[in-house]
Formats: sequence, C-alpha cells, structure tokens
Amino acid sequence: MNEQIFLQELKELDLLQQAMTVIDWDSQTGMPEASSEYRGETMGYLSSIYFEKKVGPKIKEALDYFEAHPNELSEVGQAAYRLVKEDYELNHAVPSELMAQYSAATSKAHTAWLNSREQNDFDVFKAALAENIRLTKELIPYWRRTEKTPYDVLLTQYEPNMTTEILDEVFATLRDGIMDIRQTLEEKGTVPDTTILSRYVSKAQQETFIRNVITQLGYDFSRGRLDDTIHPFATGINHRDVRITTRWNEHDFSMATFGVIHEAGHGMYEQNIDEKYEYTPAHEGASMGIHESQSLFNEIIIGSNRAFWEKQYPLFQTCTEGTFDDVPFDEFYAALKKTQASLVRIEADSLTYPLHIIIRYEIEKMMFNEEVAIDELPKIWNDKYEEYLGIRPDTDLEGILQDVHWSGSSFGYFPSYALGYMYAAQLFHAMKKELDVDAILASDDYAPIKQWLTKHIHQYGASKKPNELILNATNEPLNPQYLLEYMRDLYFTVYQVPSK
Amino acid sequence: MNEQIFLQELKELDLLQQAMTVIDWDSQTGMPEASSEYRGETMGYLSSIYFEKKVGPKIKEALDYFEAHPNELSEVGQAAYRLVKEDYELNHAVPSELMAQYSAATSKAHTAWLNSREQNDFDVFKAALAENIRLTKELIPYWRRTEKTPYDVLLTQYEPNMTTEILDEVFATLRDGIMDIRQTLEEKGTVPDTTILSRYVSKAQQETFIRNVITQLGYDFSRGRLDDTIHPFATGINHRDVRITTRWNEHDFSMATFGVIHEAGHGMYEQNIDEKYEYTPAHEGASMGIHESQSLFNEIIIGSNRAFWEKQYPLFQTCTEGTFDDVPFDEFYAALKKTQASLVRIEADSLTYPLHIIIRYEIEKMMFNEEVAIDELPKIWNDKYEEYLGIRPDTDLEGILQDVHWSGSSFGYFPSYALGYMYAAQLFHAMKKELDVDAILASDDYAPIKQWLTKHIHQYGASKKPNELILNATNEPLNPQYLLEYMRDLYFTVYQVPSK
Repeated sequence: MNEQIFLQELKELDLLQQAMTVIDWDSQTGMPEASSEYRGETMGYLSSIYFEKKVGPKIKEALDYFEAHPNELSEVGQAAYRLVKEDYELNHAVPSELMAQYSAATSKAHTAWLNSREQNDFDVFKAALAENIRLTKELIPYWRRTEKTPYDVLLTQYEPNMTTEILDEVFATLRDGIMDIRQTLEEKGTVPDTTILSRYVSKAQQETFIRNVITQLGYDFSRGRLDDTIHPFATGINHRDVRITTRWNEHDFSMATFGVIHEAGHGMYEQNIDEKYEYTPAHEGASMGIHESQSLFNEIIIGSNRAFWEKQYPLFQTCTEGTFDDVPFDEFYAALKKTQASLVRIEADSLTYPLHIIIRYEIEKMMFNEEVAIDELPKIWNDKYEEYLGIRPDTDLEGILQDVHWSGSSFGYFPSYALGYMYAAQLFHAMKKELDVDAILASDDYAPIKQWLTKHIHQYGASKKPNELILNATNEPLNPQYLLEYMRDLYFTVYQVPSK
Repeated sequence: MNEQIFLQELKELDLLQQAMTVIDWDSQTGMPEASSEYRGETMGYLSSIYFEKKVGPKIKEALDYFEAHPNELSEVGQAAYRLVKEDYELNHAVPSELMAQYSAATSKAHTAWLNSREQNDFDVFKAALAENIRLTKELIPYWRRTEKTPYDVLLTQYEPNMTTEILDEVFATLRDGIMDIRQTLEEKGTVPDTTILSRYVSKAQQETFIRNVITQLGYDFSRGRLDDTIHPFATGINHRDVRITTRWNEHDFSMATFGVIHEAGHGMYEQNIDEKYEYTPAHEGASMGIHESQSLFNEIIIGSNRAFWEKQYPLFQTCTEGTFDDVPFDEFYAALKKTQASLVRIEADSLTYPLHIIIRYEIEKMMFNEEVAIDELPKIWNDKYEEYLGIRPDTDLEGILQDVHWSGSSFGYFPSYALGYMYAAQLFHAMKKELDVDAILASDDYAPIKQWLTKHIHQYGASKKPNELILNATNEPLNPQYLLEYMRDLYFTVYQVPSK
C-alpha cells in the first residue's frame, strides 16, 4: 500500500460518483418521465458498484496501513484519510440486512407520503413513518461513537461535531429573539406593499436578469449551467462542472430571482474548493450547514442588501422592458422584504424561516430522545405553529405532511438550514470588519466578497469541520446573536420602526 | 448456469451502457466545455468496467454452457446468445496490448486530423492515418472468421453478412445510374429556383414546425426529447428514453427541418423495438445500414414526397408567420429538391449523396485489399470527384480531410450510408404494394406507415440480420434498381424532364 494506490482507489470512487451525479442531474432536468423506472435500475446498479467498492478490500487495507503509517500521507492524503475513516467507521459495522430493510422502508415510506398528501391525511403515512423511526433507532447504536444522545448521532451525520446541547441553547435564543422582533414589527412597523411582486415578468426576462446578477456575484458559467427543474438544486459533478437549477413563476419573479441567487451560492462554493482536493472526499462541502451558509449568504445577506438592489434595480428595469418604470426604488425594495407568518416552510420569508426549522428540530428530538406517540405528532406540530408563528394549519397537507425529509429517514437534516443561516450572518459580521460590503455591493466589482468567502470557507472543502471553519473565519464559535442583530437591523429599517 | 443468470449479467451490462449513453448525450449537448477532460476520465473508467465484464468469467461460462445446452434458452435468450457469441468471438482473441495501441493511435489521429484541418494540409494527418491503417491490418486476422478479403472483415463489423463482392456490383450499378440521371437532368431538365430557402426563419419558428411534423410521423416525445448540439445524432438510452438532437441555421431552415426528420427516423426505430428484447444486445438496431434506412426513409422518402409537403406546407406557412405567404407551393417544393454536385458529403443532396459514399468505399478497398501509397490518396480522391461528380476539390479541407471517420479507424463504416438509402427505397417499393403512401401522406393519420416499418423492421431490433430483414420485408435481396427508379421518378418530375 502507498498513497498513490489509496488516492487512485478514491479517484475511481469519485469517477463513479461523477457518473451518478450527471445521471441524477439528468433525471431531475431532462429525462422523459416515462423512463424513471429504468433510471432507477441504472442508478441502483451504479450505487451497488460504488458502495461495494467503498467498503471493499482496498479501502480496508489503506485504512489499516495508514493507521500505522500516518507520516506517509501528504496533506491532501491525510484530509482524505480522515474522511474515509469516518465514513468507513460509520457504515462498516451496520449489518447489511438491516441496511436493506432501512432502504426498503424509506422507499415504501416515500410512496406512503405521496399517497397521504394526495388524501391529505397523516394516518396514511403514520405506519411508514413509525417504521422509519424504528429502523433508524435500530441503526443508531451501530452509528454511535461518542455522541451523548441518540439524536446527536443523527445530527452529526449532517453537521459534524454539532450537539443537541449546543442547539437547544442556540435555537431557544433564536426562537425567542425572532418572536420579539415579530412583536415589535407588529406593534410599531409599517407593512410594505407587495402588489408589484405579482406583475408579469416573462421567463426570458427573468432569466436575462438573473444570469447577469449571478455572474456579477461570481458564479462561473463557463464551469456550470442553469436549467429548469421542479425542485431546484445545485450539483457539483466536478470542479469544472457545477450546475444549478430553478423553476420559474411568471407572476412571481421573486421566486426564481432569489432561488437562482441561492443555488448560485451553493455553486460558487463547489466551484472554488481548492483543486488539490480533487478526486478525494475532501473535494465537497464541509457539511450541510456550511453549504447552506453559502447559499443563504447569497440569497439573504446579499439578496436583502439595499445597496445591492439599488445597484441592480436599473438592470432589472431594463430586463423587464418597462414593466417597473413607474415603481420607485424604495417601494420595490421594501416589497422584497415583507415578512408574514406562513404555514409552509419553503414559502417562508427570511425572518420567520428559522421558526419552521426549530419546530422540526424539537419534534425530531422528541422522536429519538423521548417517547412520543406517532398519533400525537400532528397535534404537536399544529400547537407549535400556533405558539411560535401565531397560525395553525387546518389540514395535514399544510402541516406535518409538507416536507419530504421524514419519508426518507433524513432525521437530523433540518437543523442545517437554520445553522446555515446563523453561519451566514456570523460570516457577514466578520467580513464587515475587513470589507466595506455596502460599498462593494454598490460598485461594479463584487469580487472581494467572493474572495473573502473563498479564502475563509470555499477553498477548504471538507478538509476542515464546520465548527473549525466558523471559529477560524470569525474568531468565535457559533453565536446566534449575529443573526438576530442582522434581522433587527434589516427589518426595523424596512418596517420603519422608530428607534428608541 | 441458467438463462436467468445469463440474462441478469446482460442486464447489468446494459445498465452500464445506459449510464454511458446518458453521460455521452450530456457531453454532446449540455456539458460545460471546461469539463471535457474530467468527462473523458469518467467515461474511460465506466468503459473499463464495462469491457472487463463483457469478456468476464460469467459471459465465458454462459457461452460454454449454452453451446452445449442450446435448448435451455428461450427465443429472447437465443437471440441474445447469438449476438453475445459473435461479439465475444470478435474480440476475445485480440491481444489487449494491440487493442491499447489501436485506441491510443485513434486518439492521436483524431488530434492530428483536427490539426491537419486547421492547416488545410493532408501531410499533417498522413502519418497518423498510415498508423491507423497499419494497426487495423494487424487486427484483421484476429477479427477474421469466414470473410473473403481483409476489407470484408471491416465491412461486416458495421453491416453483418455484407461483402465487397455484393457491394462492387451494387455500387457500380448505382454509380452509373446516378451519373446517367444527372446527365439527363443537365440536358433536359429545368433547374428549380432555390432563393426562398435562405429566407430568415427563427429557431423558435423552425422548432414549432418540426416538432409538430415528427410527432405526426410517429416520434414519441413522451419517450424522447430534442436538444441542440454541434454534430446531430440520435441516441437510445432505453426503450422509453430515445433522444434526438439538431443544430439550427436561421438562414437555411432546410438544415434542421430535414436533420430532425432524419434523426426522428433513428429515434422511431429504437422506440419501437419489441420490449421483450430489453436489457439484451438484441434491443438495438440490426446494423448501421438498417438504422440509416430508417432515418433516410423519413428524411428522403417521406421528406421528398410531394403529397407530404402539400399537406405540411400550410402548417409551415403558419409557423413561419407570413414569411412564405407569397411563395406558391410548387415553387416551395421544387426548391427543396434542387440537385447540384458538391465537394462536401454532408452538404450533398439526395441524388449525388451516394457518389460521395462510393468514392470513399473505393478508396477504403484500395487501402486494405490493395497496396496504395498514403501520399497518393489526395490525388485519388480528387480524381474520383472529378470523374463522378464533375468537380475537383481545390484544397484537402474540402477534399480528403472532410470526414472524421478515418481518424477513428472507422474503416468500413461509410458504405452503411448508401446501403441505408438503397434499403429505404426498396422498403418504399414494397410498402407501396400494400399501402397507398401518397394518400396517407396527404391525410391526417400517418400511423399506417410507421406501423408497416415497425412490423417489418423496427420490432426485431438486432435479433435478425440486415439481409434477412430486407429479404423478409421485400421478398428480394438488396437491389439498387429501386433507388435508381425512385430517383428517376422524383428528379425527372421536379426537373420537368419531358417523358420519352
């Protein structure tokens, strides 16, 4: 065994991954619907080759060898070794029969979830959800290393080194802070008029505008592309092929506008990971939360910035060919930042969004760290919406059935969304110490912002853990106060809340 | 060993093939150019898995077992077995080092060919071409089974059971017949005016028209799609995902119009192979020639038909939004069918096209069955153009350097194009005995034509050989007279040649 053999094995794994990524992109963009069963078989077969190889003899041999000979690895080799080892330790002990049961259960649960949505009835989904929870609980002991609670085991699969202990505190602060802000806005704020948001803007007009904007932000179209899809995503096939997707609504331009800016944030992250990590597992995002911090930095931090929109509005007016000629900038900008409680997470605005996440976090913790009856979940869900957001779902469809995640047993995933948002605000705070962000966003050259993010986050890929990245970039561990401060500044201004 | 194990192995091979086909489609349509090296690595790795498996122990075991137990195979199993056996026998004896040399040489030759085109100088390409020929000659003995001449060995790789003995006679008849027709047109015909062909038709207008037309012809968009590319092609990923591509010229609508009709013919073939052959090597076209017969049936037989265009012209006028309102149908139709000698094969019309092919056939035969000096080839090429087409290339670029095929060692491929054309005319002759094709093309329902082709050709996939398909469908072996008759009828009418 030597490093070259180890890296060659990782490269072959990566090439298989690249193949699957292209094919998956195709499934979600262009594939004729009629072909989906065949596509499932193709992906299933490639996955089986991939996973066999991932826990195959060469990897095992490399892990044993470099455990004893760590000094024979280069820096890149060491980063790769750590990640491969973590992954191997997580999965190699799981009985393959249990894993097969788990896969079959999620596949069945996905169908049950779709049916339950069609019938708008949680009862149709609950047995499958219970089975997903049961099997996940069976798996937790195999996955568990040093984590304190069962739910911590799930959490760390998406956000390494994150704990419920940290999240309980952070989320409580965030929840209370947001509820405070909402109360102030309600009592003292002026609600923006949003009627202009529904003016007709053709797909072609939107696309011209948004391609221009994300190019300014630093998304590199010569190493990417933008396509239509139903559920938007970004996907990095390799360093020079990082694609983004969106859907369009000609009566709500804000959907694709912020959607594309969001996906471009994911895309820029993957386009700017240091090339030296290529063909290794370090050549990807550090975690779901860090990935989301980059998309949300684009979408919310930049996408809510007044100077940014003052700069872009003339371009928007040109691209929309006269449709907004009568709309003063202040009216346009304020309309973009109206906040209103909604029942559906993916329709939530940037103030209320974390509350949706916190509700899911609290319920997932109940599922795994406490005993909760499946039958009680819709009521718990609805009660929490009423308590935190002041609105109550009338039906399961706009309540507990809205997200796909639990049907796929992706328990522990949701917190990433709120973590990403807090990271983004904290990075913004640190960035402002070095850069005059408003002045940059008012200028013709946005490069310094991307460069800062590349320097502190992008370049490292998965070679550093999320907490390490945030500490190094901001000189502080995760601190929810930066997001709350950011929200207060932004919304109190837009809502013209009189200062004390 | 049993049939199920054998078919499962073939299915896995087919799934790998499907993966490579999607990825290749992506490379030719949407992939960012910057990623092409990575893509090469991905395809290279998948190919290596595929080819190892294709000559692997399971296939070997199945071939041995069913050689001794042929009765244990179902009809589909037998068809698959025959094809796998042929393929295995063709390739298993080839020394892998020779194969590697051959691959490396074609890759090098492709670069040399591109360079030679840039410099418009055959000398830059000739050493690489000589090496391709040399290595192909070294391979021929490994590939050879019962073929009489070295060139027959190459020919049968694209058109099973075809021989130079047949082609010498067929091509001589065709060449002389076409030269006769051309002489008659020149002496007695009236040349159509083609100025209307260059009127501006936007890509969107062309696309609306042509999507409608190929849907009428029977291309199923619910199991396919149409995309832009540089070198148009059709590709069957599986039974329910058969894609076609085109390029557009807004000052020559005929390019994409006939291009898409052509590719749709390939697509309809693959969409209509009997599903029972799925996941086996029988689920593809019978040969290059038969495949081309289906695309040319669409493009030329239907695409030159007066009744077809009389029916489609009002739609064309609507789609082009007034641009052709002043053009009488007769003028439009005649413009489509002007014939004129050209130096470049892919720009040739449907009368002169076979002459381009015959020239290449005669030269390839000289390369492999006779001794010819590489240095002589440009002169031989130019002399033949002068003799058969009456025009002589001024430069290598519009002469011997125009085609990619020889850089990839695809010797023996060219005849397929002319074979497909002759098959198409012969099928048309047989079809007319059962169907009133003109009446159908004037009607709202083109289904009977597709049904006839599916019944006689499409459904069988590769389970029958080309000569068997043609004999069964037309009650006669390949006969070039049908194409000559067809050409006379068509061009004498369009050119208003007085009947004797």
